[in-house]
Amino acid sequence: MRFEEQTLEGRNAVIEAFRSGMIIDKIFIQKDLRDGPIQSILREARKNDVIVNRVDKARLDRMSETKKHQGVIAYAAACSYAEVSDILEAAREKGEDPFILLLDEIVDPHNLGAIIRTANVVGAHGVIIPKRRAAGLTAAAVRASAGATAFVPVAKVTNLSQTIEELKKEGIWFVCADMDGDSMYQTNLKGPIGLVIGNEGDGVSRLVSEKCDLKTAIPMKGDINSLNASVAAGVLMYEIYRQRMN
Amino acid sequence: MRFEEQTLEGRNAVIEAFRSGMIIDKIFIQKDLRDGPIQSILREARKNDVIVNRVDKARLDRMSETKKHQGVIAYAAACSYAEVSDILEAAREKGEDPFILLLDEIVDPHNLGAIIRTANVVGAHGVIIPKRRAAGLTAAAVRASAGATAFVPVAKVTNLSQTIEELKKEGIWFVCADMDGDSMYQTNLKGPIGLVIGNEGDGVSRLVSEKCDLKTAIPMKGDINSLNASVAAGVLMYEIYRQRMN
Repeated sequence: MRFEEQTLEGRNAVIEAFRSGMIIDKIFIQKDLRDGPIQSILREARKNDVIVNRVDKARLDRMSETKKHQGVIAYAAACSYAEVSDILEAAREKGEDPFILLLDEIVDPHNLGAIIRTANVVGAHGVIIPKRRAAGLTAAAVRASAGATAFVPVAKVTNLSQTIEELKKEGIWFVCADMDGDSMYQTNLKGPIGLVIGNEGDGVSRLVSEKCDLKTAIPMKGDINSLNASVAAGVLMYEIYRQRMN
Repeated sequence: MRFEEQTLEGRNAVIEAFRSGMIIDKIFIQKDLRDGPIQSILREARKNDVIVNRVDKARLDRMSETKKHQGVIAYAAACSYAEVSDILEAAREKGEDPFILLLDEIVDPHNLGAIIRTANVVGAHGVIIPKRRAAGLTAAAVRASAGATAFVPVAKVTNLSQTIEELKKEGIWFVCADMDGDSMYQTNLKGPIGLVIGNEGDGVSRLVSEKCDLKTAIPMKGDINSLNASVAAGVLMYEIYRQRMN
């Protein structure tokens, strides 16, 4: 995972950066500008939960390196995606059985960030997320990860089911978090493992769930019967950690 | 459980809220105001034991959503608080050893809500929070609890250390989440227990920590060494749950 601090100056540079999926940290926009391109940038910023600072032209002039800022300067803390193979390599380097998280359409960047944070803390080797219908490594996710995105490889794949099929050939077996499964305390979670966590509202999708080798449940005894997605992922990751320790 | 009103702005809105019996959490009043309506609000606040913060106009301007605060902004609790005795009663009714969460200055309402949610799911009997410097049962917290605030008694106390002293007399012993403690897997967490979770940034404060009978740590093996507060609370609550099951 590479971090390259990058300054983007000018409207097109910033709009292109958003289009390319680059992670923008902060944008400074000249106070009195309200034209079309500025509106586009503001829209993208809102969509991506990026902090916008309205400042006067003199401040931008001082900040500018190119002296061609056109009223917009953005800071990108570009944090790039990894490949699935990087995750396997990370496990190999440590001489450990792979421990991978697969997030099936987690949509809240705060949940994604908190999950990446826990993944690092328990020593998981990487996180796999789908390209579509899921939160990516936005500024909000990176912030919520409290620095963990610098350490945990995050791979983005087109088709989660297909990735599971491929990883099975590497000897990894897959456990799906599912209320109908056996209690995690009664499930053997040792060995090379892929833990599949479902969407905040709907759980793991049928197609992905069918690819899993087994289902495991977090036991519950309350009046409500679901946990926050990042809490559920944390509790399951720690049960894997506990079993691996023994 | 209603949570339409979260922030109240303006003198009449706040006075009416008191009259209607709404539970006000905190009031911010412009420093230099001393007129009749302000005096009424201060009187009601004293009567209802509500914390009043005297701040300058600039601060209120920043806080205001309507930009019509008239020198007063109040935050209303989205649902009602319980007493500490209600929590003990809940345990007694179920014939279980008390299992209580004490949150030492958790400031993010999403964390508070997620913790209350997990508390319900693991069968904890209640949550105790301090009056000052902490998130209360705001609309955001109630939403994040996914309905759990309807089941989990949440008590607000003036002094957490003092409450711990009082509960010790009831035979409850207190475990403080602390990185320097023994691993939670090596700590006996059975029996009547109060689990103390610290603030997002600073952990458990010294005064509260000193009242605890022992410290326990979530083991970590990553590059970063802290978890999101609601994830940490969830992992600890589940370790208590696991040990109680056996």
